[in-house]
Amino acid sequence: MNTDLKSLGTQGFRAAAVSAGIKKAGRLDMGLIVADEPCVTVGVATTNQVKAAPVLTNAKRLRSGRARAILVNSGNANAATGMDGIKNVELLTSTLAAQLDVAPGEILSASTGVIGVQLPVEKMMNGLPGLVNGLTPDGFGDVANAILTTDQYTKTASDIITLGKKQVRVSVFGKGAGMICPNMATMLVFVTTDADIARAPAQAALKAATGPTFNSITVDGDMSTNDTVLLMANGRVGNTPINTTGRHYGVFCKALTAMFEHVAKLMVMDGEGATKCARIEIQGARTERDAMKVARQIANSPLVKTAFFGEDANWGRIIGAAGAAGVKLDPLKIGIDFDDVAVVRNGIAVADDTIEARATAVLKKPEFTVRVHLHAGRASTWMYASDLGYEYVKVNGSYRS
Amino acid sequence: MNTDLKSLGTQGFRAAAVSAGIKKAGRLDMGLIVADEPCVTVGVATTNQVKAAPVLTNAKRLRSGRARAILVNSGNANAATGMDGIKNVELLTSTLAAQLDVAPGEILSASTGVIGVQLPVEKMMNGLPGLVNGLTPDGFGDVANAILTTDQYTKTASDIITLGKKQVRVSVFGKGAGMICPNMATMLVFVTTDADIARAPAQAALKAATGPTFNSITVDGDMSTNDTVLLMANGRVGNTPINTTGRHYGVFCKALTAMFEHVAKLMVMDGEGATKCARIEIQGARTERDAMKVARQIANSPLVKTAFFGEDANWGRIIGAAGAAGVKLDPLKIGIDFDDVAVVRNGIAVADDTIEARATAVLKKPEFTVRVHLHAGRASTWMYASDLGYEYVKVNGSYRS
Repeated sequence: MNTDLKSLGTQGFRAAAVSAGIKKAGRLDMGLIVADEPCVTVGVATTNQVKAAPVLTNAKRLRSGRARAILVNSGNANAATGMDGIKNVELLTSTLAAQLDVAPGEILSASTGVIGVQLPVEKMMNGLPGLVNGLTPDGFGDVANAILTTDQYTKTASDIITLGKKQVRVSVFGKGAGMICPNMATMLVFVTTDADIARAPAQAALKAATGPTFNSITVDGDMSTNDTVLLMANGRVGNTPINTTGRHYGVFCKALTAMFEHVAKLMVMDGEGATKCARIEIQGARTERDAMKVARQIANSPLVKTAFFGEDANWGRIIGAAGAAGVKLDPLKIGIDFDDVAVVRNGIAVADDTIEARATAVLKKPEFTVRVHLHAGRASTWMYASDLGYEYVKVNGSYRS
Repeated sequence: MNTDLKSLGTQGFRAAAVSAGIKKAGRLDMGLIVADEPCVTVGVATTNQVKAAPVLTNAKRLRSGRARAILVNSGNANAATGMDGIKNVELLTSTLAAQLDVAPGEILSASTGVIGVQLPVEKMMNGLPGLVNGLTPDGFGDVANAILTTDQYTKTASDIITLGKKQVRVSVFGKGAGMICPNMATMLVFVTTDADIARAPAQAALKAATGPTFNSITVDGDMSTNDTVLLMANGRVGNTPINTTGRHYGVFCKALTAMFEHVAKLMVMDGEGATKCARIEIQGARTERDAMKVARQIANSPLVKTAFFGEDANWGRIIGAAGAAGVKLDPLKIGIDFDDVAVVRNGIAVADDTIEARATAVLKKPEFTVRVHLHAGRASTWMYASDLGYEYVKVNGSYRS
């Protein structure tokens, strides 16, 4: 897997970004990805009841299963903007469609930034020709930059996957920061591939890869108004089409999941002011639903997150959060480990004077695992959680997102 | 309603506190409330699946509906301490019972402090004689101090309620801070009254008064391992016994609720590092359950809470949190007001250049109301929420609670 900006891009796709003045002057804030031919295109989007205008428009346009381009902007989420917000998407995409000589329905879009303010349409209309004229196979790095908001760095991954005698390329880039406990920072992810894959297996693969990655850092119910993952496949490689029943499907899913996991962890680590990326692993739950409830309660607990920030091996807060998850459990069976340090067995502290120091040493690392064993069944899950420190307050106490 | 420490206390009850050395030397950390005669005693406690030893012991002892004394301590929660934790409660209360010449089953207890560490039993046993010998009708203020942990001040209320020709006295004191979004800080509340009220109406009154107060600042599923509210009534006044079907029941409930509301708001304002107390009011929900879900999602959103801290009238985060509550709603119907300033109507910003300044002025106040109208039905609810600032991180990043 490659993680550098220069490795982004896939044959048959071009991209460009401009500074349209939505954000502070001079910063890239509009981007465009265009496929040379109509592509199989699938997506997953926020389950938030308040959906941004581009999310609503995409939902309609994705029904065809095909698209040609994705227009993105940062600096304005076009969410909670009512009918005018949707009209603005339609105006921008139909204008762009004319310039690209494609149908408006073949253009998807995504926005991230402040909620409740109408898009600066005039500025954005003025930005379109620059995007169209600037399209290049090497433009993906610029788009990866143009979609950043509070992100401190770009988040990309690309890989070449061998499917029998063919090699397909998959490029992934995204944005998102501070979305783990907080519930509003938008996650956008775009995937281009030259693999031949039909709509149904593409949708299935996207869903399978999203579950243990982006959906394990952002909680369903906590998704932002704008969260969007889009995948475009142009089939240029001419591989035997990937099918859910074929042996290449698993290979493709595995590679996609690995790339998503890389990008997802970058989002956690870039969590607004995050200093830690904790994997909250729940084992021995009665059901997967129970496991997820406990994982979320722990991962979202401000007290647990501030303890991580303070590098305090405060397992009392963890067991307390587990008990508050609304899941029936037997406290006297719970076990807790910090990486390989067993701190709790049968619901009480492991009696060993060295535990505290060893557990604290684990928390001093930037990445660690907190494993909670409920001994109630065989279901398990995990989530990635950031910590909660001063920077989080600083960024979110002043940034109008 | 009186809110000063000196007005605490009720005829027929005595109290005392000592420094037993559980917390740093010299700080009051053990308290005792004793009734001169067996009292009608009822309680509500945490729904957390991980219950502290005193909560488990109280549950058994409250079955009789009568008690004589409550032993409290801070500095150690006696939670996640297994069977040893329960044995320690039994040892301490049976020793105390002998000294008070009552049955062990007549003694309730409550603890708050660090989780997962066994009680310093020897120190506490040594503290008992001082408690028993120090009992005085004026000792309640000391106990109100002895139960504090991260609290910055005591939280008390007392009142004289006229029931026909009789006047009954009710005294309330509690502790709790930072419990609003965080889910572990313990809330303890103790009520003494000289009213004559049987067990069933006392339990009903306690439940009725807790719902819109303590349960509207601390979320059920988020309760700590130790949360406890206990009410003792000795009937000294000789009023016609308060009955749920009688006219005095409503008067009693109303007064109790008002006192609980006062103490609950003090808890929010004393939230670890809190600078704001926001009333999150949900109106026009389809069901009360829907209303509560939306209220909780907003009240617990770190992004909303940091915006309050930053005095940023960022309604986008509020509407986003509402949409993420797992409740079906129509975004284009939502209205939002900050106190009397209408900022959102029909899901979009109210077009008025003065709104931003006026809404910001509301957020600069220490107390304000955020009213979200869903226009989906007639159900409503509210919650009190603190903000989330640097002090919260400071207190919880270093305090081992």
